[in-house]
Amino acid sequence: MSAPTHLAGSVADLSTKAHCSEIECLMAEVVADPSSPLDSSVAQAALAHLSSGGNRVRARLGLEAGMRVGLSKSDSVVLGAAVELLHNASLVHDDLQDAAMLRRGVPTIFAARGPDVAVLTGDLLLSASYAAIAQFSRSAVIGEMLRLFHRRVARVIQGQCCDLSARNRPVTELAQYEAIVAGKSGALLSLPLELALLGAGVRDTLGLAQEAAESFGIGYQIIDDLQDVGIDGPLSLNILNVLQAGRTLEEATCLATEIASRHLKFSSEAAARLPLGAGELLGKFAQVLNERL
Amino acid sequence: MSAPTHLAGSVADLSTKAHCSEIECLMAEVVADPSSPLDSSVAQAALAHLSSGGNRVRARLGLEAGMRVGLSKSDSVVLGAAVELLHNASLVHDDLQDAAMLRRGVPTIFAARGPDVAVLTGDLLLSASYAAIAQFSRSAVIGEMLRLFHRRVARVIQGQCCDLSARNRPVTELAQYEAIVAGKSGALLSLPLELALLGAGVRDTLGLAQEAAESFGIGYQIIDDLQDVGIDGPLSLNILNVLQAGRTLEEATCLATEIASRHLKFSSEAAARLPLGAGELLGKFAQVLNERL
Repeated sequence: MSAPTHLAGSVADLSTKAHCSEIECLMAEVVADPSSPLDSSVAQAALAHLSSGGNRVRARLGLEAGMRVGLSKSDSVVLGAAVELLHNASLVHDDLQDAAMLRRGVPTIFAARGPDVAVLTGDLLLSASYAAIAQFSRSAVIGEMLRLFHRRVARVIQGQCCDLSARNRPVTELAQYEAIVAGKSGALLSLPLELALLGAGVRDTLGLAQEAAESFGIGYQIIDDLQDVGIDGPLSLNILNVLQAGRTLEEATCLATEIASRHLKFSSEAAARLPLGAGELLGKFAQVLNERL
Repeated sequence: MSAPTHLAGSVADLSTKAHCSEIECLMAEVVADPSSPLDSSVAQAALAHLSSGGNRVRARLGLEAGMRVGLSKSDSVVLGAAVELLHNASLVHDDLQDAAMLRRGVPTIFAARGPDVAVLTGDLLLSASYAAIAQFSRSAVIGEMLRLFHRRVARVIQGQCCDLSARNRPVTELAQYEAIVAGKSGALLSLPLELALLGAGVRDTLGLAQEAAESFGIGYQIIDDLQDVGIDGPLSLNILNVLQAGRTLEEATCLATEIASRHLKFSSEAAARLPLGAGELLGKFAQVLNERL
């Protein structure tokens, strides 16, 4: 998922940037393994990818949710860093699979260093995301976090596989589009909230966190799709390709906007029902996106 | 690293097969995430890869070392499964990078399902290896295991990167060859022993386990290289390409055999010095390979 440009502003507005530099430090620390005796060209590629920016939505969701539910600052940083690393692992491998040349305005790892290094860089970032979780202070809960983490990774992977398959068999049903996006994008938006809730010992609302995040992911993706009209080809997984049969572009756009709005509204309401304020930042993001539609 | 054919026999001879089916079950369980609501074509690819065989050297090293140092059967199974999954993740991505068509006599994931699924299958196996570690019963030590696991993953990744780079800049120095092989292959041979020692609370001999495993990895790889003479091209990372400058093929083969023997002897001796018999199986493997040279 690329970032709708108007969300970058929203993130800057809504989230305090406190402790974000600590997330960057932790990400760099687990990526650039100091104990490796060989040269570290893959670690350098991973650091270059991380330094290219991004709006760190998942890092901020983890940090904010962790602090809200009463975790320590350092544990909240761990959750934010872990999910952000995982997200970036998926981006590096997505770019490889898409043969994408640019991300965040700079050459992708695939473009700059070739497919072999892109495979290895994504692998290193994926492994590093687990190494970040290892730093969570309450060891009694780490096993449960790892299992959840892996379930979400599996969901993202399968979502990406469905996305790639859809290029050969265009998706024409809204429900299928929503299921793919919920898997590919929703899983890593819910994970920071779920980890925070797990860390605080609150397990009975993980499903609600997932619903809130998946709806946010779908709303967010639809906005992204609408921005990409004319860029995405007719076989791309784009909401307009899903909705356009029997409709004009204008009608499809209007309907897509309605669907996005419905998802964002649902997300905002579900996030507000999460305990301890764990969903507050996600809810605000959803609200801001919905208002700007 | 592919398996020298005469090691397959050695493994069957030397290791009890008890509990190995439990390792297979655990690997399948963490790969085929039952909670994923989408279809699971990537999980199916990963299971297909696992079911294609392999001699499970790392699984057996973990199982045997775990039992020796006094871990429970289920914890020993966890260690074996985790490292074997990690090894198989690296094989799937190696095959993609090599565009290899066959492994273990059947089409690789790359050949059978294409590069996109190969990327995702390796990712799933890598993530699953961490999910296996999550099942280790003593949560107090899981954080430390994860950090060690990630350091070894980073070493394998960088080793593979050096291996790939060597195809453009042929390796002509033995020390460089050994460093690459130690990273790429040694890291996942030492990991099962190191995890077992960590699990038993014995930390001061991790370096010795690493030395024993790296030497075994180098000896094992040299034997593999000698089997591949005529298959590997002049730019491949093969001990004969490293040693052949100024020597006949026969002289280079003789020298390579001597070097392999020296490494296997060192490995066997170092493994014997590991506490609690943690290195016994590795030492036996090294001894058998050396005797058959």
